[in-house]
Amino acid sequence: MASFLRTAGRVRTAVPHCSVGITSRAPIVARQRRHASAAAAAVADNGEQPFFPDEPRLPIVNTEIPGPNSRREIKRLSKVFDTRSLNMMADYSQSYGNYIADLDGNVLLDVYAQIASIPVGYNNPSLLLAATSPEMASAIINRPALGNFPQHDWAEILETGVLTVAPKGLNQVFTAQAGSDANELAYKAAFMWKRQQQRGGASADFSEEDITSSMNNKAPGAPDMSILSFKTGFHGRLFGSLSTTRSKPIHKLDIPAFDWPQAPFPLLKYPLHEHAAENAAEEARCLAETERLLTTFHHPPAAVVVEPIQSEGGDNHATPTFFRGLRQLTKKHDVMFIVDEVQTGVGATGKFWAHEHWGLDTPPDMVTFSKKAQTAGYYFGNDALRPNKPYRQFNTWMGDPARAILFRSIIQEIERLDLVANTAATGDYLFAGLERLSERFPGEIMNLRGKGQGTFIAFDSGRRDEVLRKAKGKGVNIGGSGERAVRLRPMLIFQRRHADLLLERLERVFLE
Amino acid sequence: MASFLRTAGRVRTAVPHCSVGITSRAPIVARQRRHASAAAAAVADNGEQPFFPDEPRLPIVNTEIPGPNSRREIKRLSKVFDTRSLNMMADYSQSYGNYIADLDGNVLLDVYAQIASIPVGYNNPSLLLAATSPEMASAIINRPALGNFPQHDWAEILETGVLTVAPKGLNQVFTAQAGSDANELAYKAAFMWKRQQQRGGASADFSEEDITSSMNNKAPGAPDMSILSFKTGFHGRLFGSLSTTRSKPIHKLDIPAFDWPQAPFPLLKYPLHEHAAENAAEEARCLAETERLLTTFHHPPAAVVVEPIQSEGGDNHATPTFFRGLRQLTKKHDVMFIVDEVQTGVGATGKFWAHEHWGLDTPPDMVTFSKKAQTAGYYFGNDALRPNKPYRQFNTWMGDPARAILFRSIIQEIERLDLVANTAATGDYLFAGLERLSERFPGEIMNLRGKGQGTFIAFDSGRRDEVLRKAKGKGVNIGGSGERAVRLRPMLIFQRRHADLLLERLERVFLE
Repeated sequence: MASFLRTAGRVRTAVPHCSVGITSRAPIVARQRRHASAAAAAVADNGEQPFFPDEPRLPIVNTEIPGPNSRREIKRLSKVFDTRSLNMMADYSQSYGNYIADLDGNVLLDVYAQIASIPVGYNNPSLLLAATSPEMASAIINRPALGNFPQHDWAEILETGVLTVAPKGLNQVFTAQAGSDANELAYKAAFMWKRQQQRGGASADFSEEDITSSMNNKAPGAPDMSILSFKTGFHGRLFGSLSTTRSKPIHKLDIPAFDWPQAPFPLLKYPLHEHAAENAAEEARCLAETERLLTTFHHPPAAVVVEPIQSEGGDNHATPTFFRGLRQLTKKHDVMFIVDEVQTGVGATGKFWAHEHWGLDTPPDMVTFSKKAQTAGYYFGNDALRPNKPYRQFNTWMGDPARAILFRSIIQEIERLDLVANTAATGDYLFAGLERLSERFPGEIMNLRGKGQGTFIAFDSGRRDEVLRKAKGKGVNIGGSGERAVRLRPMLIFQRRHADLLLERLERVFLE
Repeated sequence: MASFLRTAGRVRTAVPHCSVGITSRAPIVARQRRHASAAAAAVADNGEQPFFPDEPRLPIVNTEIPGPNSRREIKRLSKVFDTRSLNMMADYSQSYGNYIADLDGNVLLDVYAQIASIPVGYNNPSLLLAATSPEMASAIINRPALGNFPQHDWAEILETGVLTVAPKGLNQVFTAQAGSDANELAYKAAFMWKRQQQRGGASADFSEEDITSSMNNKAPGAPDMSILSFKTGFHGRLFGSLSTTRSKPIHKLDIPAFDWPQAPFPLLKYPLHEHAAENAAEEARCLAETERLLTTFHHPPAAVVVEPIQSEGGDNHATPTFFRGLRQLTKKHDVMFIVDEVQTGVGATGKFWAHEHWGLDTPPDMVTFSKKAQTAGYYFGNDALRPNKPYRQFNTWMGDPARAILFRSIIQEIERLDLVANTAATGDYLFAGLERLSERFPGEIMNLRGKGQGTFIAFDSGRRDEVLRKAKGKGVNIGGSGERAVRLRPMLIFQRRHADLLLERLERVFLE
């Protein structure tokens, strides 16, 4: 922790949290002071340097959530926008660091973070500097068609941003808008690569039959090939990505899908180390079935796509052995290995990319990203993944320089505050606290998982939706995943003080 | 033109073009002055009030394009990003109004405008005000998951922006990231609506078979239904949208596609009014074939999707009669009618939405937008298009408030300068000029089309790619579409002076 504390200390001098504020945080802070003394006992000062010294020290719950002001605005919004999935009507001008505010003066510790997509805190001052720079303004109002008219500093933006955190072995990027299209672009790259290979390489041209049939959506031009994904996996909700998503029926019902294969994902027993032998057998079974599908499925796979931790599907883990096995299978059967790091990427697991935990001999062929990157795309390293002709992988915007500039700023903030190390350390601390809680409340915390995976932690609950609802009443915003998982997705600025608070509030929920 | 001139005059007083500049435009202007006297004869001052008084009066061509500086940067970018489709390495800090600059001091009149996506000029000062507002900064750094935690003013942003220009009869919006996913979301809404209807309405629940089969990508849960699109249409390049795209093989080769029907799009003869009878017969033939597919295709269509003018496919027009016929067919056979206004929308055809030219009795069911809106989504009016349960039409970000704020500012700029009327008037002026040119150069301008459609004008050329290349050398950036169309896609701030310049430069190309 020493280096992390040093870094945190350095920061406070470097960027004072003040002048560039979008809106005064005075209201929160003032209210907060009134609560602070009463709360001193609840959250011990552990000597840790806070990343956000002005952050609320405790949540504020003034009303039920949503309260009257929020309900009024929800009613208004409902007329023009679907609000049935609405959790909170947020007031981002009053949100700060790890805390999300609403219209009724409620201020919650946020360990859901916009479905795992806010990386370094609400109204982060360093990001605000980037967002108010002339460069950002130009990127917003002069949005280029990047494939045709890139801006002169596009290489610079990529090289000093997105590419500085490229997974080892991958030195190129294709930028996109969100996780779903990032995955689909990776799938397209895989299909083009595979068909090119079958044709005899980049110099072999399309046949007349390829050309004609493609225009009729028929093979061989539109090939009867597939992407292999895993049961309970989630890769997005557009037509191609949804065909690889197998998380919940509500995602898939009534939407036509490709006849693509799904392999079983290991159903492991937690804690993993206590069930090593049977878990290993389960993983071997899943690998064998994967290989069977790779070799026999009637629509041959061009790629395997997998999440390092199945997130929407319920936080399902597998061991590095399983993933190394997958990498071997994809090599053996000459298909692409795509790692979907949309939710796991950018530090949350205590490594910048979750697949760094696996100790692979050779890198994945493609790694997709979005969410905490606040931009999206896929990394690759193999030149053969550049299609043999221009305009094959192309669209109007091909990403967004504004969001790429923001990602660069996020990366700099992560490095400046050593936030990946922070997340690894805080995650261990939080996990230990949850283990203690689970011993006291075995019916409330089941299958606790994510040990050694930063703050990417989850557990099962027999009354999950009730727990999430009650946690809000106690000042903590938490999300769920799968059928019964409570998933914790704090930001990378989540510290021990926040972990203590979360543990204390969970305890209160369980005691009720 | 009177009201347009009045408006333009008003503007100059309201927003002086100066202080908020991202970067000084002095270099362009200084260089420009040196060219101005020589050019006075070439471009007559027609008395028109310029929207951008500081805009270059003429293009500057210093080097071949790309010149040495650009080539150096292209080489650098090529290492990490595919540049084979690159047209120009742009310098947006030096671009202004209708003029795009590059790294070698070349400044071109831009009638391609980032593939028809820049609406109101490079470095538009009004947009710059929006881009540097505290509201925008917050939207950039606090990006919400709109379905779960919308910002408190999301209704306000929609109501004062996106929804003020909603097509008549459509009062709701689902926001997206780009044209391709906007179309796919509309398709998903159509499928959910149709299956719900088949099930007996919103209250009828999914069957066990629906639920189980959907998870296996099989019917009935993942239904064998389709979207009907038209030959040479373009609707995007993700897996579902690409299945409805039928423009060029290079878009489709090697990508698996759904077995969905394509109807013929009318192959009309231009000018339309000189071939009214045979064009009407052709349209009737296409409508008959559409009806046949709607009633007999083995994967029943849930929707018809069509562009008002097929843009990527070569600027193919049809008459209002054809589109009214389509609307009738979709009503008769109870499928959704989706109008893809990604390229035609936001003023370019001299109406805010191109389908306003048709005189429909009932509005389309959904209208999709992107490009000039700088944000994307689909409009709808029918509550039955809201799926019967939450989380069915959902994703993490569900659009982007930053881009919605920008669209609001674009709309305000369009209204302030009366730019739709300007585009209608300038389009007529430009079309008349092109008609005169086509009489002199019948081999160069064939099938001139887009009369009465604002500046959304195209013509065929026997040496299209050469014309586009030579036009760059003469200081004009023009794009192509389809196999041989020269497509003009100026911004909405394109005025008669620019039309004169474009005509004069085209003439020079033709004379060579």
